[in-house]
Amino acid sequence: MLKNYLKEKREFIDNSIKEYLEELKYPPVIAEGMKYAVLNGGKRLRPILLLMTLELLGEDEEKGIPAAVAIEMIHSYSLVHDDLPALDDDDYRRGKLTTHKKYGEAQGILIGDALLTHAFNVITSENQKVASDKIVDIVRLTSQYAGVNGMIGGQMVDIESEGKNIDLPVLQYIHTHKTGKMITLPVEIACIIAGAEAKKKEKLIEYSELIGLAFQIKDDILDIEGDFEKIGKPVGSDTDLEKSTYPSIFGMKKTKEILAEKITAAKEIICSEFQSEKVKLFTDLADYIQNREK
Amino acid sequence: MLKNYLKEKREFIDNSIKEYLEELKYPPVIAEGMKYAVLNGGKRLRPILLLMTLELLGEDEEKGIPAAVAIEMIHSYSLVHDDLPALDDDDYRRGKLTTHKKYGEAQGILIGDALLTHAFNVITSENQKVASDKIVDIVRLTSQYAGVNGMIGGQMVDIESEGKNIDLPVLQYIHTHKTGKMITLPVEIACIIAGAEAKKKEKLIEYSELIGLAFQIKDDILDIEGDFEKIGKPVGSDTDLEKSTYPSIFGMKKTKEILAEKITAAKEIICSEFQSEKVKLFTDLADYIQNREK
Repeated sequence: MLKNYLKEKREFIDNSIKEYLEELKYPPVIAEGMKYAVLNGGKRLRPILLLMTLELLGEDEEKGIPAAVAIEMIHSYSLVHDDLPALDDDDYRRGKLTTHKKYGEAQGILIGDALLTHAFNVITSENQKVASDKIVDIVRLTSQYAGVNGMIGGQMVDIESEGKNIDLPVLQYIHTHKTGKMITLPVEIACIIAGAEAKKKEKLIEYSELIGLAFQIKDDILDIEGDFEKIGKPVGSDTDLEKSTYPSIFGMKKTKEILAEKITAAKEIICSEFQSEKVKLFTDLADYIQNREK
Repeated sequence: MLKNYLKEKREFIDNSIKEYLEELKYPPVIAEGMKYAVLNGGKRLRPILLLMTLELLGEDEEKGIPAAVAIEMIHSYSLVHDDLPALDDDDYRRGKLTTHKKYGEAQGILIGDALLTHAFNVITSENQKVASDKIVDIVRLTSQYAGVNGMIGGQMVDIESEGKNIDLPVLQYIHTHKTGKMITLPVEIACIIAGAEAKKKEKLIEYSELIGLAFQIKDDILDIEGDFEKIGKPVGSDTDLEKSTYPSIFGMKKTKEILAEKITAAKEIICSEFQSEKVKLFTDLADYIQNREK
């Protein structure tokens, strides 16, 4: 059930992204590069979470499309910049050349900048069914969670921690900020759009924080145990960059136990608040994050 | 009169920027780097234009502060990224080390990203006196003029034109997009905030386009005739990068004539629509752009 749902939603999101990027033509290298960077076979976990949450809250999915597309643009720009020579210096992502390897380094920087900037254009696109005061809240939250107090902060501490032995609080800061905030963001945006009551919102955010952390722990595991053919990038890059990870701090056995605990907690929290059959998507998604191979 | 006005407004803008950046503390390198990049003795032409236009339209200046600060953050991020090794590879700006020379290249990329992202947080800050539907319009316009269809587009074509003989339409595209859009932006935002009538808005935009073009032509002239001590960066960098400019296409004499024509036209347009004494700031500003030494 989840597998079909994810496939269907992934296609839906991809088509929505295409529609928003279609009108961009000039300069060709930026317009093409933006499409190349976003339309890359990604899992679309973040936009799907937004749509799932709207559905769970009984709200019209269509209202979430601009923000869902924008979040994926921001996620994609962050990958484009992370891959640059001055940062992780990666040549491949999901089995394809990284954006700067394909278009050049200056181009990679500007394509990333353009995606980030355009995301805010998409969130505020005209003729939406969402009220303006909610759109303002969405822009404020997005810029907070994607910025210095969110994703970029996590990325910076991650880079500065390379080659150092960091302790668990620092690793947790990296995980909750670099990955976590952008997984909580779509859930919180859906709550804004739907006007969710405080307790429902609280539980949804807790769920998103747990699966966000689980997602990152699983990433650390796949970097050691994963299959290049499946994950589309070289295995062992964390070790090469001397990055501290859950496995490097706790060992693999304990890391997998922690992963399982987070998944169980996420499922319990979501089931404690929501009883509709739609909650099954959320528990299945948690299981999927634990068991994914890429 | 203009000189005192600019000095007073520059201090006011600098203090406003400081207030918005003050709360940022962690990670220290990003928080400090953002301050370093923005609080660099810039002319603050763009935010001052926003405040001037509000005043001319009889609107409360305070309503424009968040957007004015945000525009300067976006302008600063664009300079940080332009200076990177993969782009213009500049070591100095306004007589100080460029951000990536001071903090490192990865840091420079992320500091730029953080400034761009935070700009949208500032535009949408809470407890504003501007209605939400206008804030949404401001975010949409800002992301358009700063993005692929604006500043970034101009920057990309500029880079791709290095070492090539480009024709006037391409040079004009570069100028109107790389510099022009971000000079029209504050004027247009002020019109949104003040609810300016169509004809006033049209004339203000025409004025901003003319002084924006004049500003860039003057930049090209200063790159040849300027004084390092005053402009704070090496003279002749356009020539080094084999960039086409107004002087390289028209020669210096004709370039100065074109500059004078744009300034005259800008002053005529603004005086044709506004008769209050406040219009003098606009004509003086046009003269200042023509005669500036840095």
